[in-house]
Amino acid sequence: MSSDDLSLYFNEIVNNVNFRIKNFVKSNFKTLEEASFHLFTAGGKRLRPLVLVSSSDLIGGDRERAYKAAAAVEILHNFTLVHDDIMDNDGLRRGLPTVHVKWGEPMAILAGDYLHAKAFEALNEALKGLDGNTFYKAFSIFITSIEIISEGQAMDMSFENRLDVTEEEYIQMIKGKTAMLFSCSAALGGIINKANDDVVKKLTEYGLNLGISFQIVDDILGIIGDEKELGKPIYSDIREGKKTILVIKTLSEATEDEKKILVSTLGNKEAKKEDLERASEIIRKHSLQYAYDLAKKYSDLAIENLREIPVSNKTAEKALKYLAQFTIQRRK
Amino acid sequence: MSSDDLSLYFNEIVNNVNFRIKNFVKSNFKTLEEASFHLFTAGGKRLRPLVLVSSSDLIGGDRERAYKAAAAVEILHNFTLVHDDIMDNDGLRRGLPTVHVKWGEPMAILAGDYLHAKAFEALNEALKGLDGNTFYKAFSIFITSIEIISEGQAMDMSFENRLDVTEEEYIQMIKGKTAMLFSCSAALGGIINKANDDVVKKLTEYGLNLGISFQIVDDILGIIGDEKELGKPIYSDIREGKKTILVIKTLSEATEDEKKILVSTLGNKEAKKEDLERASEIIRKHSLQYAYDLAKKYSDLAIENLREIPVSNKTAEKALKYLAQFTIQRRK
Repeated sequence: MSSDDLSLYFNEIVNNVNFRIKNFVKSNFKTLEEASFHLFTAGGKRLRPLVLVSSSDLIGGDRERAYKAAAAVEILHNFTLVHDDIMDNDGLRRGLPTVHVKWGEPMAILAGDYLHAKAFEALNEALKGLDGNTFYKAFSIFITSIEIISEGQAMDMSFENRLDVTEEEYIQMIKGKTAMLFSCSAALGGIINKANDDVVKKLTEYGLNLGISFQIVDDILGIIGDEKELGKPIYSDIREGKKTILVIKTLSEATEDEKKILVSTLGNKEAKKEDLERASEIIRKHSLQYAYDLAKKYSDLAIENLREIPVSNKTAEKALKYLAQFTIQRRK
Repeated sequence: MSSDDLSLYFNEIVNNVNFRIKNFVKSNFKTLEEASFHLFTAGGKRLRPLVLVSSSDLIGGDRERAYKAAAAVEILHNFTLVHDDIMDNDGLRRGLPTVHVKWGEPMAILAGDYLHAKAFEALNEALKGLDGNTFYKAFSIFITSIEIISEGQAMDMSFENRLDVTEEEYIQMIKGKTAMLFSCSAALGGIINKANDDVVKKLTEYGLNLGISFQIVDDILGIIGDEKELGKPIYSDIREGKKTILVIKTLSEATEDEKKILVSTLGNKEAKKEDLERASEIIRKHSLQYAYDLAKKYSDLAIENLREIPVSNKTAEKALKYLAQFTIQRRK
């Protein structure tokens, strides 16, 4: 199978999910609709929908339910982006001004809340007609994900004032902040099709490992990525004092002189471009290879998880493998 | 039946719902838990839980499910309060500093999001074991309520810059901002017990009319209430330029001189105490009786709605009537 076949496969999913997102995110109140829909117009990779629909296909699932559930996870993801941008004071996302920059903070808080509810609406519609037990299971994992995402975001913020964050704490934090929603996406692909618990468990693990790998690479790209390709300012993680795996590793390996430079730059909102570049150079030297290897480890684990699921659809299997590999090969 | 019997009835509900709220709003991340639980510690009347459990009792429903669903609507209500206080820049609520004042805006946004998810968790647990159709119906009304609350809040904010808001627009706005959640509470009392559609419809209307009456009185108390009893600053509606029914009525009836005073005070963040008192006096003169009569009309409609529901529990019927009357008799 050529990668062109996979492009067609992915395109069909993205187009169908985008169509459903557009239908769900409607409001009688136009400003609210525009603010809520803003980030969707700026593109985005739709990775969570791809994971969900491919997981559903893998076990021969229902496409219509999968598209709606995929809309649910993508809308949920966008709600977290709108609120995170306020909390992290980020002005640029996917190359566009963020919602709070364009409409002000009150409307951005409200638009996030609106998307939060819309995500539940999409999931409720995806489940319509199924039995109560499936409703309960699907809502349970969806709700738990949101709670753990909130806790992950709270941990991330609390790390900004600390220099002693461990790798274990970092992994726990990104499991919440990022990996949980990938995990939920894969699991929902099973749950909406009434897959047995073993299959759901394997899908859950696949999504979690893929998500951890994805966030590690996100942190790498925050140091070495191309600002234009990323659509957001580089080095903002350093300026905000984010304790990424790269910073944690560097703090444990750097010389005293290097550490001094790093500590004076991390979380320093006044840091100049040359300070940030110097800090970034130190970080790269000590942690880049280590971080890549770690991301690769989790990507491999994700592919491993797939082996234990009975496959109904070979294209979906290739797609899920490709997605796990893509997380570590991407440049944005 | 004496009002003491009703106190016992209400106390039992409030204690049981508070216990369940406390259990739902837990987190491994202590700061997030404290910020999320903050407003619950400050009291609150638990009117929505009382409406929900009494509605459930009215038709002979299941108390355990009703307590959990009641926790869901109260947690949802508190999520909206936390975010509204940020949006409206309010520093005091139920006599306590608001969440964003105590923990900062980022943590307050996050705590609201966390409560939003917890509300869904409570509802999911309330429904556990029921059929898929009941799950779908219950989640539908819950989700629709949140969406309409968001739209109501957006309308409320957009009214601040307008002087030509009509009474019809005001009623539409408070239906969203306030009445919808009362309506949802009453309806859920029916839905979780698989009541027929006619009963659910009547409960929905009861809650909506009660909620409209409640918000009109809230707007009245914002002008004539006692600051200490209310637990929040008086006149803040005037300072923020809120277009309450009192302001709308006054703008349509006042003399040109009075209007000039009013317009220069409404939405004027620099307004002094004497300006606010003068504006308040004009508002009272032109609109107080009108607003009370309107609140009474909706309270009467709510009681009317109850007549058409077959009653299984006389105490619950008295409770629901009392709640509709209480909205217009309360002083805080």
